[in-house]
Amino acid sequence: MKFYQINFKSIGKSGKCEGDQSLLDYAHQLGVGIASICGGHGRCYCCKVQVLEGAVSEPTASELKVFSPQELREGRRLACQTYPEGDVELLVPPGAMTTMQRLQVEGFEIAVTPDSPVRSYNVCLPAPSMSDLQADAERILEGLKNQRINCNTIDIEVLKNASPLLRSWDWKAKVFVRGSEVVAIGSQSSRQLGLAVDLGSTKIAAYLMDLESGETLAARGVMNPQFAYGEDIITRLSFVLEKGGGGRLMQKLVIDELNRLLLELCTEVGTQPDEVVEAVIAGNTAMHHLLLKLPVKQLAYAPYIPAVKGALAIKARDSGLSIAPGAYVHILPNIAGFVGADHVAMLLSTKEIWQKEDLVLAIDIGTNSEVSLIGNGEITSVSCASGPAFEGAEIKDGMRATTGAIERLRISNDVIDYLTIDEAKPVGICGSGILDAIAQLHLAGVVDKSGRMLNNHHRVRDNEGGREFIVVSEEERDGLPAITITQNDVRAIQLAKGAVRSGIQVLLDAQNHSSEEIKRVVIAGAFGSYIDVSSAMTIGMLPSLPLNRFEQVGNAAGMGAKLALVSRSKSAEAQEIASRVHYIELAAAPDYAKILVKATNIDEY
Amino acid sequence: MKFYQINFKSIGKSGKCEGDQSLLDYAHQLGVGIASICGGHGRCYCCKVQVLEGAVSEPTASELKVFSPQELREGRRLACQTYPEGDVELLVPPGAMTTMQRLQVEGFEIAVTPDSPVRSYNVCLPAPSMSDLQADAERILEGLKNQRINCNTIDIEVLKNASPLLRSWDWKAKVFVRGSEVVAIGSQSSRQLGLAVDLGSTKIAAYLMDLESGETLAARGVMNPQFAYGEDIITRLSFVLEKGGGGRLMQKLVIDELNRLLLELCTEVGTQPDEVVEAVIAGNTAMHHLLLKLPVKQLAYAPYIPAVKGALAIKARDSGLSIAPGAYVHILPNIAGFVGADHVAMLLSTKEIWQKEDLVLAIDIGTNSEVSLIGNGEITSVSCASGPAFEGAEIKDGMRATTGAIERLRISNDVIDYLTIDEAKPVGICGSGILDAIAQLHLAGVVDKSGRMLNNHHRVRDNEGGREFIVVSEEERDGLPAITITQNDVRAIQLAKGAVRSGIQVLLDAQNHSSEEIKRVVIAGAFGSYIDVSSAMTIGMLPSLPLNRFEQVGNAAGMGAKLALVSRSKSAEAQEIASRVHYIELAAAPDYAKILVKATNIDEY
Repeated sequence: MKFYQINFKSIGKSGKCEGDQSLLDYAHQLGVGIASICGGHGRCYCCKVQVLEGAVSEPTASELKVFSPQELREGRRLACQTYPEGDVELLVPPGAMTTMQRLQVEGFEIAVTPDSPVRSYNVCLPAPSMSDLQADAERILEGLKNQRINCNTIDIEVLKNASPLLRSWDWKAKVFVRGSEVVAIGSQSSRQLGLAVDLGSTKIAAYLMDLESGETLAARGVMNPQFAYGEDIITRLSFVLEKGGGGRLMQKLVIDELNRLLLELCTEVGTQPDEVVEAVIAGNTAMHHLLLKLPVKQLAYAPYIPAVKGALAIKARDSGLSIAPGAYVHILPNIAGFVGADHVAMLLSTKEIWQKEDLVLAIDIGTNSEVSLIGNGEITSVSCASGPAFEGAEIKDGMRATTGAIERLRISNDVIDYLTIDEAKPVGICGSGILDAIAQLHLAGVVDKSGRMLNNHHRVRDNEGGREFIVVSEEERDGLPAITITQNDVRAIQLAKGAVRSGIQVLLDAQNHSSEEIKRVVIAGAFGSYIDVSSAMTIGMLPSLPLNRFEQVGNAAGMGAKLALVSRSKSAEAQEIASRVHYIELAAAPDYAKILVKATNIDEY
Repeated sequence: MKFYQINFKSIGKSGKCEGDQSLLDYAHQLGVGIASICGGHGRCYCCKVQVLEGAVSEPTASELKVFSPQELREGRRLACQTYPEGDVELLVPPGAMTTMQRLQVEGFEIAVTPDSPVRSYNVCLPAPSMSDLQADAERILEGLKNQRINCNTIDIEVLKNASPLLRSWDWKAKVFVRGSEVVAIGSQSSRQLGLAVDLGSTKIAAYLMDLESGETLAARGVMNPQFAYGEDIITRLSFVLEKGGGGRLMQKLVIDELNRLLLELCTEVGTQPDEVVEAVIAGNTAMHHLLLKLPVKQLAYAPYIPAVKGALAIKARDSGLSIAPGAYVHILPNIAGFVGADHVAMLLSTKEIWQKEDLVLAIDIGTNSEVSLIGNGEITSVSCASGPAFEGAEIKDGMRATTGAIERLRISNDVIDYLTIDEAKPVGICGSGILDAIAQLHLAGVVDKSGRMLNNHHRVRDNEGGREFIVVSEEERDGLPAITITQNDVRAIQLAKGAVRSGIQVLLDAQNHSSEEIKRVVIAGAFGSYIDVSSAMTIGMLPSLPLNRFEQVGNAAGMGAKLALVSRSKSAEAQEIASRVHYIELAAAPDYAKILVKATNIDEY
């Protein structure tokens, strides 16, 4: 019996397994959720991985069909077709992972030398006496000065607690300094923590970081509670403009949720929110404005002007965030009305990728999709109103990526293979499944280039609601209503993908490039990161390019927020990126209507 | 009939009056309240004035008795004995004014070139469009940059309102800048106002200032509402330490009162609190701490350590003061536990006086009295626990300086002459009256050097409460209880004046000076400014010096707060003064007990 060590680099899992198993079987044995539909027969192409090191079996016929010789040279393989012949290190791209696995991947770390804007210093101060009447604040500043730290201010909230604390600690304290200001004090055993937040319209991700080591101590994701007042941004802005107190409510919802998340993170790590001495928040421009209760009327109507674009450093207490009361919340800069700090954070965390190549497309797909084209030292960005279809909304049987959602789908002649989240009985289709479905229907000739669904397949039927393709029939669901893809669903996805594709085209036109010249496509965000890129190319949402030019980077915005939190130079880079970006308002782009119409066709551009 | 123009310089009143009247009669005719008890017979010496210009009658025998030749050369006269012989300009020292007049004098102005820390700039901004998508905040900063004003921050509270306001003003605005931060915006017609506050333990004085002209637009004084929780500082600190929520209550009382005062001042001037873009507050260390809700335990117990000594610039919203929300409140620096920013403000406003002479004593008399000795480039300060006797508390018939209080008193053999506030029927004695009474009783031989009251006057009687001197008898009050000075009252004043005198002595000893070397005594504060200096010398509260060395300067702390508000260089001077002062803790001074015992004797040192 042979035993090989298999190391899943991207996930941080590894283990010894018995030989004579495929990499897919190894993965499942070690609890790594690689997507697979066809049962390991090399038919669904879901389980694409990359062998970084180690000897493996020769490519099979299936693999020779799906990968180019170049890709094969890079070690790209189907996990179900590949057998280890020694210890192996391999990379599972997010797109090949099952949803539950993806949530664990959120913690991708980028190596950066920690250099937080908040520094801490231990001081041992002499106790006051009748012959040493120095005031407490000046005593602290002198203690710092003795360590050659020139500070001239102590935040008033710190002063409100310092006197009794210093005495209870017998004049030994840890002093937290930001710039030339003391923003917190703690006992000498206190930690130096930070909070990074990716404030999405749909999802909020929060990370508790150790500012000294740069390490992520805990991470949590929740739905944005504002969602109940509008799935998309415009609905929420309208709510604020129409309802008295709407702005206050929107702010309260988010701040309360952030404070709850913070408490959970702190409990998990065994600390208190007042040990958190800095926070960084990245959100799109609307989330940014709603968080800070900034006016939104000028943002909601053309020409969509933000109240502020640049980075803000405000006192935590002015934001309502319950970290150390003297600490700052650093709000990353926006680019324009609909390209916000989340995109800046994404560009920041992927800078190493786009800096190396000459033409890079960086996409964050969501209800609103932000796209940047980086080439020739220039960054040009657009915002595309892709709508909520990718999130499963406005789709007859659409649903979010939770248990029972069909997340992968393949059609081979009469057989429909699919994979559901948690391998539960299917209850609906989530975004990546819908994309797969339409791509497969197009490849099968059921949906034509214009998006029309033909009645040329035995699973197509016409009923009151129009034409639809039966993914899971009533019989297959034991009498429950069938799960179908309707003609309307196809139209909704066409509009959504057309918005993204037209944005890409406007950027290419503006910089005078053809799509073939794109060296690399970086795809970020909860949805975009986990779609099947081939399907996205098939339906013409992404330009047709060799697969190895695509890189799905997960929650890059959250990663960017973390980087800006733990590193001052990264935070300066964020500001520099935001100021460099040339924003193009799509509606004002030449021939935009024409481009958009073309882009809504399946298989176009 | 002759008509002369009489100009009362200190009060800003002048007018033409018929000749052949004394200056006192002129004053009363013009509504200037000069104190007088003896009915203009040159007996009470209350009406001391200084003729600055103009011809007047020769000194009478009374005047030759009360003034030295030097003083007469300086134009010092009794108003009741002096007749104009042409147009006259004269100065009425605060000590010679009646109480109601004093309130009007609060507005003494010191000439200073306005140079407020907040500057304002009118900007005319281009409106945004599809081809000019600049965010609102960056648009404002660019508008300033075009005027070569380098600003890099806009306060978050300003941002919360700026977008709709800019649009309503058609992009024409006045921008208020402090350092490199925009702290407020207004329409181009808005004013640039500031608030100066002298936050006393007993009285709060607030001034609404025009920051551009340096002019005082309105002034108001009220009782400190914390007074209800303790007349003296220690009682209030104990309340905070013993009662849960006591600190919050103390802060709320003062902040609510300040906001009420602010609203009144604004209404008087026809403006809104949000036109007030800067505030300066000066208070003693305890008031300072209670205002900011700083911890006070370490301040209440030896060695009496302030939480902070240096000047603070905090956001108005962090203090609770309802001026423009992005504006700053500048809290003047403290010196030590019981010598606060009010004394710094007093030293600031009187700097021109003490800078010129070699040895100057600066005194602020109150429940707590602060005394500084300035000589040889050094400032040495002490704090004396003089208690509330000077304010009329702990005195049997003591009362505050309001209607019916005896404020001046003279004893000539059997006759008691007195002056009451508003010339109402007497109801009690206020501080200056008590000082006069004890001085007169000592001069009359009724109270000896040790403070014992002798039974050698027909108005002295012994009753259950002990020995007392009848100022107004039951008969003279138509059957109401007599107003008396008791043996206990004398003891209370001895302790109070002893505290002040011993403080002065410790300062003289520390700098190796005798009291005769003092070139000038500056007396500030509500009480100290309006006492009869001769009486204060008679009872040995102040060192015996020629009268012309004394200068009573009214509410110098309020004046100092105003100066620091309208002038950055004055504000820097305040900081410099506070850091220069060498503070001596009386309890730790050599031989202090001995000095104190000696200082409580009447007519000593």
